[in-house]
Amino acid sequence: MEDYAVTPWEVKGNMDYDKLVRDFGTSYIEEDLLNKIKKHTGELHFMLRRKVFFSHRDLTWIIDRYEAGEKFFLYTGRGPSGNTHLGHLLPWIFTQHLQEKFGAELYFQITDDEKYMHDRNLTSKQVSEFSYENILDIIALGFDPKKTFIFKNTEYIKKMYKISIDIAKHVTFSTAKGIFGFKNSSNIGMIFFPALQAATCFLPCVLKEKNIPCLIPAAIDQDDYWRGIAREIAPKLGYYKPAQIHSKFLPGLQKGGKMSASQPNTAIFTTDDLEVAEKKIKNAFTGGKNTIEEHRKFGGEPEIDSAFQYLNMLLEKDDKRMKEIEKDYRAGNLLSGELKEIAIEKTKEFLKEHQRKRKAAEKIFDKFILKD
Amino acid sequence: MEDYAVTPWEVKGNMDYDKLVRDFGTSYIEEDLLNKIKKHTGELHFMLRRKVFFSHRDLTWIIDRYEAGEKFFLYTGRGPSGNTHLGHLLPWIFTQHLQEKFGAELYFQITDDEKYMHDRNLTSKQVSEFSYENILDIIALGFDPKKTFIFKNTEYIKKMYKISIDIAKHVTFSTAKGIFGFKNSSNIGMIFFPALQAATCFLPCVLKEKNIPCLIPAAIDQDDYWRGIAREIAPKLGYYKPAQIHSKFLPGLQKGGKMSASQPNTAIFTTDDLEVAEKKIKNAFTGGKNTIEEHRKFGGEPEIDSAFQYLNMLLEKDDKRMKEIEKDYRAGNLLSGELKEIAIEKTKEFLKEHQRKRKAAEKIFDKFILKD
Repeated sequence: MEDYAVTPWEVKGNMDYDKLVRDFGTSYIEEDLLNKIKKHTGELHFMLRRKVFFSHRDLTWIIDRYEAGEKFFLYTGRGPSGNTHLGHLLPWIFTQHLQEKFGAELYFQITDDEKYMHDRNLTSKQVSEFSYENILDIIALGFDPKKTFIFKNTEYIKKMYKISIDIAKHVTFSTAKGIFGFKNSSNIGMIFFPALQAATCFLPCVLKEKNIPCLIPAAIDQDDYWRGIAREIAPKLGYYKPAQIHSKFLPGLQKGGKMSASQPNTAIFTTDDLEVAEKKIKNAFTGGKNTIEEHRKFGGEPEIDSAFQYLNMLLEKDDKRMKEIEKDYRAGNLLSGELKEIAIEKTKEFLKEHQRKRKAAEKIFDKFILKD
Repeated sequence: MEDYAVTPWEVKGNMDYDKLVRDFGTSYIEEDLLNKIKKHTGELHFMLRRKVFFSHRDLTWIIDRYEAGEKFFLYTGRGPSGNTHLGHLLPWIFTQHLQEKFGAELYFQITDDEKYMHDRNLTSKQVSEFSYENILDIIALGFDPKKTFIFKNTEYIKKMYKISIDIAKHVTFSTAKGIFGFKNSSNIGMIFFPALQAATCFLPCVLKEKNIPCLIPAAIDQDDYWRGIAREIAPKLGYYKPAQIHSKFLPGLQKGGKMSASQPNTAIFTTDDLEVAEKKIKNAFTGGKNTIEEHRKFGGEPEIDSAFQYLNMLLEKDDKRMKEIEKDYRAGNLLSGELKEIAIEKTKEFLKEHQRKRKAAEKIFDKFILKD
């Protein structure tokens, strides 16, 4: 990993997903595994069809367990350091799908402690506000209130702490440093935090006093985290190793890297006005050529076109339509501006609906919060 | 500090208290400060008269605040890694005196998380049992249930955690390493723990939403801890720096070092049968000479005699009696065996009474536990 960095706190450079799979030692989601999933979900989710979720650890095992009558639970999380953007929604949308199809409980960890400690300039009030706003976005995605347990670390710490110290007892500074790149200047809260994040892998087991398989849907940058801590410790605590299903990143609207809450122009936020979103897409980096003539002649490159990727990874579920768009764009029949118009329309449609559900989420907020 | 080590987890070698005061940069409790204390306590506690408590930070300031109408609270703690021995009681007895004379609230932190994480072989069940047993000893010392708040970190973590992450945000690994001697092999829970221990210095301030001076009575080995973390961070959080009053260690019954729960022969435990205690003192290291003849001729050395130190530091409150014993022992009129008999009598008397109160403590246990 020479020219790009992938840690939970930093993703930059262009992603070479094959290299990540090799370096991390994860497995591709192959045809037979897709067929296995299909048996339970019916038609495959478009994020699987399009390899947005493309890599895994122990996913076959977890479906085998499921088929043997042993339900898994889902675990994902959010660090509330800013507003939610569409890139954040991507794995959550897929998580909602898994919950629905497998009847799985979801434990959703809001790492307000981590974000507060990570950023010197972030106040606890800000983190608390971001947490609330982020949770509205989660709820808006249609999770089942009976099976969804959202918790902020600072609020739900009591049960988490006991598991965390069980984990921490087995994790040396060396190990944590190797995975997270801690330095001597890292603060001691951030150094402890990996224990808290790993703890959720075992939280339902502790709450229900039995071993329950755990599946974590998350962007692939999180893999090393789970591999190095939770999966190492699990056998020592007598629990299953958490399985994982890994997504790619929704690219940023500007060239390179992923969406970033700290660079507003790279991302569309769920709270953006539709006009703001439109403007951002209009200004987005494209895979088109410099002139219409060249574009007509040589065609566009969907791989590096952010409007195309938004449609493909998130907004356009119709494969037939997506294939047409790709074909037309590659052939030069569809101009970048025209492609952007399609993305703008789809984005506005999505945002409008999401913002409506987000508003409705305020009223059912408490139903989703895991109580002490 | 060449030939002895003083960290919160390790005290060995012979103590050079003057060197500790110099190295740590603390202040001796001088005559004028003693007079200042006397104004509020009446006769000075024998541990002050005999310089068992001998050093401090900001004690003058805290009494000035008290005189200006601003009450301080007391903070001390216990790591429940074993049964309580008489060495543990020493600072707690003095703490009870301070509570009584200054009407101070006491926050008593049971660091069950620390002890669990520190010792690989200690189970959480063991730590929980030691915690209960240790708390009985605390209650037995006569603290005021209305003003005493005992809490285990794992149980009271919710409020503690928020303060701890506020602290942790400001403490780098370097800083913690410098104070606690962490290594790459230290576990990440132990590395975070200093934040939790410092948090109690500000806990009442958070609970009552006002700045309240804090006084920590503890053995001097803890000084660096408070100086390096809590006192550094206090101004950043807008709180007073915690003041401290430092004791010497009650020596072990065997040569060198302090009492140690891990070496039962070095210590008298509060739960020891009176006969066991008697036997331990009979076998204790003395400052006497090898033969009666030599002893009569050259006299004993009270400074290194454990029976003498037990009487002087803990058991014999009567100065006149203590002076006689010292004089007779030094002169060789009192033999080591005779001195031990005096110590045995006093110890048995103390233990019998303590064990009675300890039994009674079971019934009022809950009154002392700080609730979430």
